[in-house]
Amino acid sequence: MGSALLSEYGTEIVIPICAVIGIVFSLVQWYLVSLVKLSPEQGGCSPRNNKNNGFNESLVEEEEGINDQNVVVKCAEIQNAISEGATSFLFTEYQYVGIFMVAFAVLIFVFLGSVEGFSTKSQPCTYNKEKMCKPALATAIFSTISFLLGAVTSVVSGFLGMKIATYANARTTLEARKGVGKAFITAFRSGAVMGFLLAANGLLVLYITINLFKLYYGDDWEGLFEAITGYGLGGSSMALFGRVGGGIYTKAADVGADLVGKVERNIPEDDPRNPAVIADNVGDNVGDIAGMGSDLFGSYAESSCAALVVASISSFGIDHDFTAMCYPLLISSMGILVCLITTLFATDFFEIKAVKEIEPALKHQLIISTALMTVGIAIVTWTCLPSSFTIFNFGTQKVVKNWQLFLCVAIGLWAGLIIGFVTEYYTSNAYSPVQDVADSCRTGAATNVIFGLALGYKSVIIPIFAIAIAIFVSFTFAAMYGIAVAALGMLSTIATGLAIDAYGPISDNAGGIAEMAGMSHRIRERTDALDAAGNTTAAIGKGFAIGSAALVSLALFGAFVSRASISTVDVLTPEVFIGLIVGAMLPYWFSAMTMKSVGSAALKMVEEVRRQFNTIPGLMEGLAKPDYATCVKISTDASIKEMIPPGALVMLTPLIVGIFFGVETLSGVLAGALVSGVQIAISASNTGGAWDNAKKYIEAGASEHARTLGPKGSEPHKAAVIGDTIGDPLKDTSGPSLNILIKLMAVESLVFAPFFATHGGILFKIF
Amino acid sequence: MGSALLSEYGTEIVIPICAVIGIVFSLVQWYLVSLVKLSPEQGGCSPRNNKNNGFNESLVEEEEGINDQNVVVKCAEIQNAISEGATSFLFTEYQYVGIFMVAFAVLIFVFLGSVEGFSTKSQPCTYNKEKMCKPALATAIFSTISFLLGAVTSVVSGFLGMKIATYANARTTLEARKGVGKAFITAFRSGAVMGFLLAANGLLVLYITINLFKLYYGDDWEGLFEAITGYGLGGSSMALFGRVGGGIYTKAADVGADLVGKVERNIPEDDPRNPAVIADNVGDNVGDIAGMGSDLFGSYAESSCAALVVASISSFGIDHDFTAMCYPLLISSMGILVCLITTLFATDFFEIKAVKEIEPALKHQLIISTALMTVGIAIVTWTCLPSSFTIFNFGTQKVVKNWQLFLCVAIGLWAGLIIGFVTEYYTSNAYSPVQDVADSCRTGAATNVIFGLALGYKSVIIPIFAIAIAIFVSFTFAAMYGIAVAALGMLSTIATGLAIDAYGPISDNAGGIAEMAGMSHRIRERTDALDAAGNTTAAIGKGFAIGSAALVSLALFGAFVSRASISTVDVLTPEVFIGLIVGAMLPYWFSAMTMKSVGSAALKMVEEVRRQFNTIPGLMEGLAKPDYATCVKISTDASIKEMIPPGALVMLTPLIVGIFFGVETLSGVLAGALVSGVQIAISASNTGGAWDNAKKYIEAGASEHARTLGPKGSEPHKAAVIGDTIGDPLKDTSGPSLNILIKLMAVESLVFAPFFATHGGILFKIF
Repeated sequence: MGSALLSEYGTEIVIPICAVIGIVFSLVQWYLVSLVKLSPEQGGCSPRNNKNNGFNESLVEEEEGINDQNVVVKCAEIQNAISEGATSFLFTEYQYVGIFMVAFAVLIFVFLGSVEGFSTKSQPCTYNKEKMCKPALATAIFSTISFLLGAVTSVVSGFLGMKIATYANARTTLEARKGVGKAFITAFRSGAVMGFLLAANGLLVLYITINLFKLYYGDDWEGLFEAITGYGLGGSSMALFGRVGGGIYTKAADVGADLVGKVERNIPEDDPRNPAVIADNVGDNVGDIAGMGSDLFGSYAESSCAALVVASISSFGIDHDFTAMCYPLLISSMGILVCLITTLFATDFFEIKAVKEIEPALKHQLIISTALMTVGIAIVTWTCLPSSFTIFNFGTQKVVKNWQLFLCVAIGLWAGLIIGFVTEYYTSNAYSPVQDVADSCRTGAATNVIFGLALGYKSVIIPIFAIAIAIFVSFTFAAMYGIAVAALGMLSTIATGLAIDAYGPISDNAGGIAEMAGMSHRIRERTDALDAAGNTTAAIGKGFAIGSAALVSLALFGAFVSRASISTVDVLTPEVFIGLIVGAMLPYWFSAMTMKSVGSAALKMVEEVRRQFNTIPGLMEGLAKPDYATCVKISTDASIKEMIPPGALVMLTPLIVGIFFGVETLSGVLAGALVSGVQIAISASNTGGAWDNAKKYIEAGASEHARTLGPKGSEPHKAAVIGDTIGDPLKDTSGPSLNILIKLMAVESLVFAPFFATHGGILFKIF
Repeated sequence: MGSALLSEYGTEIVIPICAVIGIVFSLVQWYLVSLVKLSPEQGGCSPRNNKNNGFNESLVEEEEGINDQNVVVKCAEIQNAISEGATSFLFTEYQYVGIFMVAFAVLIFVFLGSVEGFSTKSQPCTYNKEKMCKPALATAIFSTISFLLGAVTSVVSGFLGMKIATYANARTTLEARKGVGKAFITAFRSGAVMGFLLAANGLLVLYITINLFKLYYGDDWEGLFEAITGYGLGGSSMALFGRVGGGIYTKAADVGADLVGKVERNIPEDDPRNPAVIADNVGDNVGDIAGMGSDLFGSYAESSCAALVVASISSFGIDHDFTAMCYPLLISSMGILVCLITTLFATDFFEIKAVKEIEPALKHQLIISTALMTVGIAIVTWTCLPSSFTIFNFGTQKVVKNWQLFLCVAIGLWAGLIIGFVTEYYTSNAYSPVQDVADSCRTGAATNVIFGLALGYKSVIIPIFAIAIAIFVSFTFAAMYGIAVAALGMLSTIATGLAIDAYGPISDNAGGIAEMAGMSHRIRERTDALDAAGNTTAAIGKGFAIGSAALVSLALFGAFVSRASISTVDVLTPEVFIGLIVGAMLPYWFSAMTMKSVGSAALKMVEEVRRQFNTIPGLMEGLAKPDYATCVKISTDASIKEMIPPGALVMLTPLIVGIFFGVETLSGVLAGALVSGVQIAISASNTGGAWDNAKKYIEAGASEHARTLGPKGSEPHKAAVIGDTIGDPLKDTSGPSLNILIKLMAVESLVFAPFFATHGGILFKIF
């Protein structure tokens, strides 16, 4: 078998060091962003501050209003309003999160504790019957604790991410006065703060939790890592609130603002006269930043937990090989270092000088991080794993070589890159698919929608093949452990992925602030260019999120099946098949709910915006200020209320199916929801992204073909706007929310597996 | 075990008698329709003919133009044009069908013959090793023959159905002059011709084939019914051409006609100045009549074959109990009698006097046929089955009671009714879902599309639960045989279902003819009322088609698995799981292709229509006649060409997967495509139906609410028209075509199972 090069002692040091490096790096980025000053007094009087503010350094070209302190004051004001709105939404959300967390923590404790009737006696282990393991009650307590820790880590990371985003948006706007390169770096650095904080925090808390739990569990690693799965559930539950609640918020505000502003009142996007404009900008932060962050954090926590729980009953766990056991964490540690180097390529090694360099720079981030990480995985694999070991494979132990495990992680990583590139191809207006959709606007909105839907359907093909190949290879080599580490491989560059992703909404906000602050056309053009690149990267980010969600869910599903002591999930049994077909239906049910939620919330917003335009005198003329706060409140309340039905569907389905129909049917439901949900998620987010960029393609009019379709206000453009509005809830609410559906149901089933296996399937037992 | 009441001799007589009764009944209906004369000379001069023509009998109210022979001449002319167009399309299609059939027949022969190297020696049977069975070469030959027979039966039934439909449309228009009741009866009788011809022909040919094959096979029933599965494949392959080709044809013509006519030229639907108007009406016949017919015939043939092949290796086959063996055919025979009685309720027992009685009359057809059939199933079950018997269940024999089998068939039947009613609820504008969609048109096309998509997603929930319950009960009671007979139960009232369904396009055509012949507004109002009811029943028909397709596919899947000698299809193996996820992707790929096909074909039509408007002087003024034939030809050629890629996807997938990846992966693909495809099919056809009826709801303005949205030409109405146009390809092409995808892949796998089991999985064998 051989043993690893890295000693247990070394592992204990390497992981926290890497996590701390990540945290320090993100704080440095934050500091660098903070050097852009938003307070005009300082900027105006002190030469040193002036220099830091950059007012007289590296002026790329002659700028208008660069010394106009009024603009700075205005930007600061708007930023404050956005930041306050976002904070108020998150705090309202956290009140519900708090109630939910407490209730769910009690549920976990009661369900898991009841498995052995709250007995405090040690029991024979599930897999190694000769050994004694800690009682089920201990698993119940520690699962509850790790659940709470996962939830809190997610909340803190999401909150800090949102804070830096709302801290950076106005700063990006101000930097745009000095050129597109400066603005790009500010936005990207802020995204990196979010990315590194989340990756490093997640790793550090998980690492500390394992070490603390070990004090109690000792060498009962089976129990220890069962309890750790709660961490994944905690992270994923918060993602429900972040993704679904945030998704409804952002699109209710966006669609509501557009329906009255653009359609009825004929005022431009982000016009300060529109009462919903602040809510719209808040939405970008709570949906695309906090929501996306919590989603990816959930995936990350879940895949780590799935890998650990399988490893604990494999030779790593049986032989108590701590370094090999920590392989998933070591991969993530390496990921932080690799992403750190990658980030420097965007912020320090090269400088962006022109608009057309933005998109390549972001793409290079993906390629560089993937290439470096491949080497990183190899290093971790050959230093931390024995050359041969065994992995638990549904009741048997399977022999795996270290190079096979390297391939599992690497194929996940590269599948992610392929998904990213395919997503880019189908959603960027540099390629023919989006241009064809734009072209179909000639014959009206109907053909635009038909072609857009067809594009989304088509865009599913290659990502699914990529996922299928990744699954096949990793499954064949290392069973469910292989799948879990493949997911981790895809997520190993999470810090870079999140940085790129968060960059988008920050740029979007920066553009909004420029518009609201009445800055010149040229500034707005620069922020628009940043934003257009951000649209594509947002779609890529969603592609990653969905791809990793698919792998993670499968890994969790496998871990659930192992833990529920099922040896086969045979489609040719009625229990499994009905689970499969009902499971495949759930994403439709869920999407119907989330789309309806956006519709209803948007209609409430429409009413309020109309009311303000009708009752506030001088609003349309720009003489009076609209009541932004009421719109923020409406979006907040509506999104919290509207997320209850879809949230209940996700949370209750595994419980109801497990309790009444048992683990076989639940297996079917999980598999069905997974294979069906991933398709809708990919197609919905790509269709939406394509419509958005088809509209931008017509608006920008950069090519001969685009100019025949434009300009703004032409019939094809109007058709494109309709497509864009339809795409909003698809790409930002219902599509990405499906990640949560498939992951959360799987991790919930995993945590409750012992309960379902013992007490579940009541209905079938009766008949 | 006990034995059946009905003797083998009785069975041999009962089945053909029922089939002949069905054929005679349909000919009587045809005769009754033919009494409405289309030739003015006869109608004008002879008093007897005059009476038959009904010109002076039962005039419900004073009519305009009732003795205007010009109108009759015009109607006859238009009918001829439509009939010629449809015939020309079908003949062009049949040329390709012919080539395809010959090629595929050769493929079947070669693949199946090669299983035992074209040996002519008898072999030990697969399931009963002690007995000798006919050689694989015989199976190859007879499978090829039954394939051709199935294909020809489908072609003949579809062709005759189209003939009667194009024979009845103008007659319905003329009868509408006498009142809505007369017109309804004409349209409904014509639908019944199609329904009974198809059900009875299908049964008769299948019955004769079995008896002829028996002459060779003797008591080798295993081989006999293996060979019979070719009949299902033949029927289903034609459905590919009928559904997909016909679907592309009808929507290319419809969308093309609308985009230029309604949108650009602002002329009403069915205006004779529109060059694509005849093609549009042809489309209704080739798509909704011939296509739907071939689809349901395919389901019917496949479920019969699946039931028979499972029965042949169950106690029925082992004990050579011919009556019990013929249970599926006896159910269908009873179905013909039940539907015959049901039809009389619509045409003879009651008379429709007002518009509002149409929809209830059609709904009563469903309820009456279901209620009567429940009794019918009971009679067949208790007279034809022994009280207890065994059914083959993936390697073991399972004991089944006759009452259990009764429940299997009955639950299929009732699940169909539930699906029908849910579909009606979501697509009829009498209920809130469609009204909500119509209401969302207030805020524009975007909200209309969002709400429509959400409605479609939501409409999946109950049908899936109904299908899941039907599957669970029939699967638990009688394994795959149970599923097959549940599908037959759902299809047992196929004659009534098809009559209702075909009634829709006939009424639609009748309205078109009234418009084109320049008949009065009141006639058009009556045909519109018939058509509106037809829209809902068309959606119901699609619901039935999809529900039965799901059950049939599962039954075929089960038969495939049995024949390929797989005992479990374990999701937790990489081979099956990648099949599952790729299979779930196929409906998206397929839908992308069919939607794109409609788009491309429609654009060609748009160009031609524009060309004619621009180059034919006096066309817009109604002084010159457009060139209808060119449009018909364009639609024909485009649809044949555009159906090749989706057709290839369906036909090649099982072959490629089976040959390269083997039967396990193919099982996964079939299961994945089934559980994913059924959802998209239901949601697509309901979304489309809802948009169509939301538009009609605004146009009709029957309620206070509807009037606030209208009239025609208002902004909400324009938004509704956009939704309607988007829905066209969804509900009439991509949605229903998915039935073919899931059924055809399953039956093809079944037929080639022995080949795949012997020579398949090359890739996995290499690695």
